[in-house]
Amino acid sequence: MDVGSPIGLHRVLAPAGVLPQAAERLDASPAIGADEVRVRVERLNLDAASYRQLSEACGGDGDRIRAAVLAIVTARGKMQNPVTGSGGMLIGTVEEAGPGSPLGLERGDRVATLVSLTLTPLAVHDGLRDWDGLSEQVPCDGHAILFARSIAAKLPADLEPELALAVLDVCGAPALVRRHKTGKVLVLGAAGKSGSLCLAAARGHYTVGVVRDTAEQRLLEGTRLATEVLVADARDAVGLAAAVGEPADVTVVCVDVPGCEHAAILATRPGGTVIFFSMATSFAAAALGAEGLAADVTMLIGNGYVPGHAEYAIGLLRSDTALRGLFEARLGLRLADWAA
Amino acid sequence: MDVGSPIGLHRVLAPAGVLPQAAERLDASPAIGADEVRVRVERLNLDAASYRQLSEACGGDGDRIRAAVLAIVTARGKMQNPVTGSGGMLIGTVEEAGPGSPLGLERGDRVATLVSLTLTPLAVHDGLRDWDGLSEQVPCDGHAILFARSIAAKLPADLEPELALAVLDVCGAPALVRRHKTGKVLVLGAAGKSGSLCLAAARGHYTVGVVRDTAEQRLLEGTRLATEVLVADARDAVGLAAAVGEPADVTVVCVDVPGCEHAAILATRPGGTVIFFSMATSFAAAALGAEGLAADVTMLIGNGYVPGHAEYAIGLLRSDTALRGLFEARLGLRLADWAA
Repeated sequence: MDVGSPIGLHRVLAPAGVLPQAAERLDASPAIGADEVRVRVERLNLDAASYRQLSEACGGDGDRIRAAVLAIVTARGKMQNPVTGSGGMLIGTVEEAGPGSPLGLERGDRVATLVSLTLTPLAVHDGLRDWDGLSEQVPCDGHAILFARSIAAKLPADLEPELALAVLDVCGAPALVRRHKTGKVLVLGAAGKSGSLCLAAARGHYTVGVVRDTAEQRLLEGTRLATEVLVADARDAVGLAAAVGEPADVTVVCVDVPGCEHAAILATRPGGTVIFFSMATSFAAAALGAEGLAADVTMLIGNGYVPGHAEYAIGLLRSDTALRGLFEARLGLRLADWAA
Repeated sequence: MDVGSPIGLHRVLAPAGVLPQAAERLDASPAIGADEVRVRVERLNLDAASYRQLSEACGGDGDRIRAAVLAIVTARGKMQNPVTGSGGMLIGTVEEAGPGSPLGLERGDRVATLVSLTLTPLAVHDGLRDWDGLSEQVPCDGHAILFARSIAAKLPADLEPELALAVLDVCGAPALVRRHKTGKVLVLGAAGKSGSLCLAAARGHYTVGVVRDTAEQRLLEGTRLATEVLVADARDAVGLAAAVGEPADVTVVCVDVPGCEHAAILATRPGGTVIFFSMATSFAAAALGAEGLAADVTMLIGNGYVPGHAEYAIGLLRSDTALRGLFEARLGLRLADWAA
């Protein structure tokens, strides 16, 4: 058993010399190196922006969506949507752990990966036959490879695996909000997974949750996670700023649709901070939008990795029954457009 | 004379209700509202990423590049590259200032716009006949409209207009570096406009400038702007990290080519900061790259607006003859690939 690169450089097939996330194609062969771990995959959780793009491109047809995902994994050796650039995460059971792996995993451990599918070697064995293509939760038999520097969380015994997966998928967001929260905190897409966790992370502050319709409003108001819940279109900069009134100190963008950059900037006070978590964020729209609005705001690219993020997010869910209820209701409903 | 929106909403033709930067088409008609200013354009300075994309799409053919720019301005009523989303800035003379304009400009003032061309109504009168298409500096007779909240700087009397324009175009970068600099500061694309200004802003710190070839290395070493100058490919994450050695506290990305996100992240220490100024930055590549590398770095979207940015950048140029010499040499050479 060879020891490869801790960040998986030895699994890159093309182009040569790039990191796995930037690669066109990865080597997903099942034989592991001494510091690698092979996971038997049970379920993929596609990134919301990726699922939405695939669904729209396929006209909402489940069979076509399934075929599209299968084609991507077969061609690339990983699940990375070529349009959005995003992936998702997976759940499974450790099948084999190399003797040199530092991840502390053993055969039989149920785990969720906390690194993106965009850099995880993946092979599908069952043609995704158990997936109807109509939700971003994908039952899947296959295998995936973890590198020495990959991050995986053992699934908590007290939570449903689907629930844990949904929380772990976005656990970087509440951890980053915890670090930057101050004053009035505005969350766009507040009834979604990352949005509701961000509200929970900002407890004790004046929080404003923005949702898209009255159904989401009622749902979120019932949780008392937000001081104030507003129905507004997060792409409508002028309308949102008017609805929010006094600008926010920190604005958190958790809406998985493009075109929310200007609204977030305009709703934030000078000297404030905007944290972009949506993979649909356009770098140029944010940079030029702030300049064009003469807005002195600090704009952060939401980093999915913050030390201790998994434990922190799981802890929020455990300590807040309303938050947990929101997640359980959403998962029960299996909404295809379940926000990121 | 009507008073319109201070951020130019009344100039948006399509789609309805969006901000000017997000608009497909703006109304560039010359009649101004009471709080607007009309500028007679002398020169456009295209954003480096935009120019590079156009040049590559047109096979470096100046006539085709000129036709492409003209087609964009005619169709959109502004110069916004539909592929990169970026624009640039312009220089000109105030032709008419509405009585309600707060910008403090008078007919005859020579100005540079500090808001992006992506949201500035623009009409070209001369078919760009004086431009060879081979540099991003575009001689142009035309007119542009400034809104009440637009930002324009009167050109300093002691600097060549081209020199002032080149500095003002990127003046947000050194202002943001000034705010965030600490410890070891790494600048990718250090011999370019924004890169060299960022090095000047980080004076007094241990600075490392990364350039692409030995010609740039000699040029930059001659200025003594950087403590250390390295030749490396900023897209090669593994190679760059090895060349840099001890990771940086702050990494500043000023390279106008795609694919530098991972290298910047890998070269930065845990807890450090990466500031992305290049319009070629991919939001998803940065967010997922940091996650995939388990890198706890704060990632900032370079905001082109920081209060006082124009005066600060011009001051850096005035106080540093080597920096000024670098700018003058570059402008004299008229390098088409003059980095952003």
